[in-house]
Amino acid sequence: MTTSSLHDTMQTIGQQAKAAAKAMRAVSQQQKIKALLYLADKIQENADYLKAENAKDLAAAKENGLTPALLDRLTLSDKSIQTMVAGVRQIAHLDDPIGSLSSTRILPNGMQIAKMTIPLGVIGIIYESRPNVTIDAAALCLKAGNVAILRGGSEAFYSNTALASLIKEALAYAGLPDAAVQIIPTTDRAAVGHLVTMTDYIDVIIPRGGKGLLQRLANEAKVPLIMHLDGNCHMYLDRSANLDMAIELAFHAKTYRYGICGSLETLLVHQDIASQVLPTLAQKFTEKSVEMRGCPRTLEIIPSATPASEFDWQTEYLAPIIAIKIVDTIEQAINHIEQYSSGHTESIITEDMHAARQFQLLVDSAGVYVNLPTVFADGFEYGLGAEIGISTNRLHARGPVAVEGLTTYKWVLTGDGQMRS
Amino acid sequence: MTTSSLHDTMQTIGQQAKAAAKAMRAVSQQQKIKALLYLADKIQENADYLKAENAKDLAAAKENGLTPALLDRLTLSDKSIQTMVAGVRQIAHLDDPIGSLSSTRILPNGMQIAKMTIPLGVIGIIYESRPNVTIDAAALCLKAGNVAILRGGSEAFYSNTALASLIKEALAYAGLPDAAVQIIPTTDRAAVGHLVTMTDYIDVIIPRGGKGLLQRLANEAKVPLIMHLDGNCHMYLDRSANLDMAIELAFHAKTYRYGICGSLETLLVHQDIASQVLPTLAQKFTEKSVEMRGCPRTLEIIPSATPASEFDWQTEYLAPIIAIKIVDTIEQAINHIEQYSSGHTESIITEDMHAARQFQLLVDSAGVYVNLPTVFADGFEYGLGAEIGISTNRLHARGPVAVEGLTTYKWVLTGDGQMRS
Repeated sequence: MTTSSLHDTMQTIGQQAKAAAKAMRAVSQQQKIKALLYLADKIQENADYLKAENAKDLAAAKENGLTPALLDRLTLSDKSIQTMVAGVRQIAHLDDPIGSLSSTRILPNGMQIAKMTIPLGVIGIIYESRPNVTIDAAALCLKAGNVAILRGGSEAFYSNTALASLIKEALAYAGLPDAAVQIIPTTDRAAVGHLVTMTDYIDVIIPRGGKGLLQRLANEAKVPLIMHLDGNCHMYLDRSANLDMAIELAFHAKTYRYGICGSLETLLVHQDIASQVLPTLAQKFTEKSVEMRGCPRTLEIIPSATPASEFDWQTEYLAPIIAIKIVDTIEQAINHIEQYSSGHTESIITEDMHAARQFQLLVDSAGVYVNLPTVFADGFEYGLGAEIGISTNRLHARGPVAVEGLTTYKWVLTGDGQMRS
Repeated sequence: MTTSSLHDTMQTIGQQAKAAAKAMRAVSQQQKIKALLYLADKIQENADYLKAENAKDLAAAKENGLTPALLDRLTLSDKSIQTMVAGVRQIAHLDDPIGSLSSTRILPNGMQIAKMTIPLGVIGIIYESRPNVTIDAAALCLKAGNVAILRGGSEAFYSNTALASLIKEALAYAGLPDAAVQIIPTTDRAAVGHLVTMTDYIDVIIPRGGKGLLQRLANEAKVPLIMHLDGNCHMYLDRSANLDMAIELAFHAKTYRYGICGSLETLLVHQDIASQVLPTLAQKFTEKSVEMRGCPRTLEIIPSATPASEFDWQTEYLAPIIAIKIVDTIEQAINHIEQYSSGHTESIITEDMHAARQFQLLVDSAGVYVNLPTVFADGFEYGLGAEIGISTNRLHARGPVAVEGLTTYKWVLTGDGQMRS
């Protein structure tokens, strides 16, 4: 596409999205449920078609030498299609947050005031290889009354286009605006640059993908982004921790799944219990082939660990590697977290009420846990339903961003002709 | 200041602010109240000193030919000093939002989850001539546990420096970090450019001032801004409006105070009642010397009005001028608002439940009123207390931004060693 025709295409998409956002404000809860349930049915019915289109992407990806991990993410299997179907049905049946009132009060002059939950507006989603994000993102955005502009990875172009055609059918079936979900119809990388700067049409962008993509977007964006760059999560084993729990939770937090952003990356251990918990933990990690990188005092207790450097405290491994540091006090643990955390999720293991309170008050991350592994950072686990991502922003949604995070509010005031004095 | 020394100064301010934000998380409610009440006392005691410093600014301003309106804003009078003192005392006694828990639930596996209200962090305030903003902004930021970096207008440099010295005393007296409130110690305009891009240190910027300043900041900023560019507010007089109320509220909404952002700028009138309300309204506006600019049908009813152009529908006059348009239906009114509104505040005057519901659901502004004048858009009127500004953002705080709008939340989870299955 030429530069000017790409510009025009993106402007048209933006204008259509803005118009659709207006129409979505008048849509009923039933219409949204109808569209979502129909979409789930259509995905199920069209499994073979989806796999055939996906096969085109897979063939091209193999030719382009994509890694097995990327090929795996790109694949639409019977199982991943069933997961999409179940996910959309679940979203359809979530409580609808739109129009609910909170902070309702009567003011001294008799006016009634409330905050009404409303859709966020037009949401841009930028993502990489997984085609299921097309469905998950569209369904969540729709449920909250939003309009979605989806920009998937070029390697999933055929899969995403096929999924988009089913979404269009579902929108039409339920009488929702055709432009409530739009897929950017080009693999031109410059389209993303347009998307993140179209402040006239797009209210927020939720990017998902590798750190390279996210950092580039954060630099370029004029539209607000909801995202997290890193999940450098910490667990602190307090001097008063239940030792068995400390060992179990640290092991679970690291090994539950290495690739999720809530996975434990740096373990902080109070000096008083280090020699009691670290040998057993080291044995468990070694059995699981988890590489340990420790501070000098850790190396004295775990000779098989390698020395940790500044790099290790800063790094989200997303891999079977863990950094371990022994601290003198809870304050040292909190300071370490203050310095190195990406603000995602941290946990203290302790039996001491005061230590728990201190940690939960002073640690400044989106999730701060007591006696729980950091891997609970997930919309379903929080009881919020499907999530579209996890935010380490300070404004708006923090932590798992689910339907509620895709809404905002307006103030509604109702009176009887009151005037200001 | 040289470019590199300004850069160093700003970096130091940022680092100090970040460190102070950490310290502020451990501060008690009592300490904040103590600091604020002491500050109020100090302002009162030092009224003469403040007026003397303010006189230096006024002298320079007169030499530089500032307009009488700007001189008025710049002046610290006995009355404006008393208003500051009363404002700080009021803020001191507001409910403290920090640490409060909401959405508290026990999840199926027994974990407890809640959202804890926490300070937003480091807040940059950029403002123009009014020195009282130095105190109002510092007090509101402090009350919510935030750290403030204040950048006032160069024309108020002596006044702001004097006020800052009192703030420093109050911080020290209550044991709050010295850098909890910092004033940028230079009138160099380039400092603002640093401030709005220091994403490592500043969490949000709240700019106050003319549209020129705000537009420039919106273009340059990398730090999120909480602000509104325009308050192009609408009132729609529905066909079923109580005619007396319609006339009273339209007149009040325009004439209560011309210079506030909630002031009415465009009046939309249903064709069925236009000939009943507009002649009386025109007479009242004429008596008050409010200039009327109308659509062709309005001109038939109000011959003294001048023709409105596209410019008028787009414009926030902040002056004794009103644009008037007759519409065929409520849908036309809503569409006009959709097209021209700046998303600030709109109102419908109607006795019809359905029209009221339709308007409040479909109009997408920060404030949507029924049978109330738009001039209620104010933190005090909403029962929120002193406001630091009004936001037309879609993310985070919308409408009047008071103490609550200067907070965010984190998820706190407490368990007994639960693990993910």
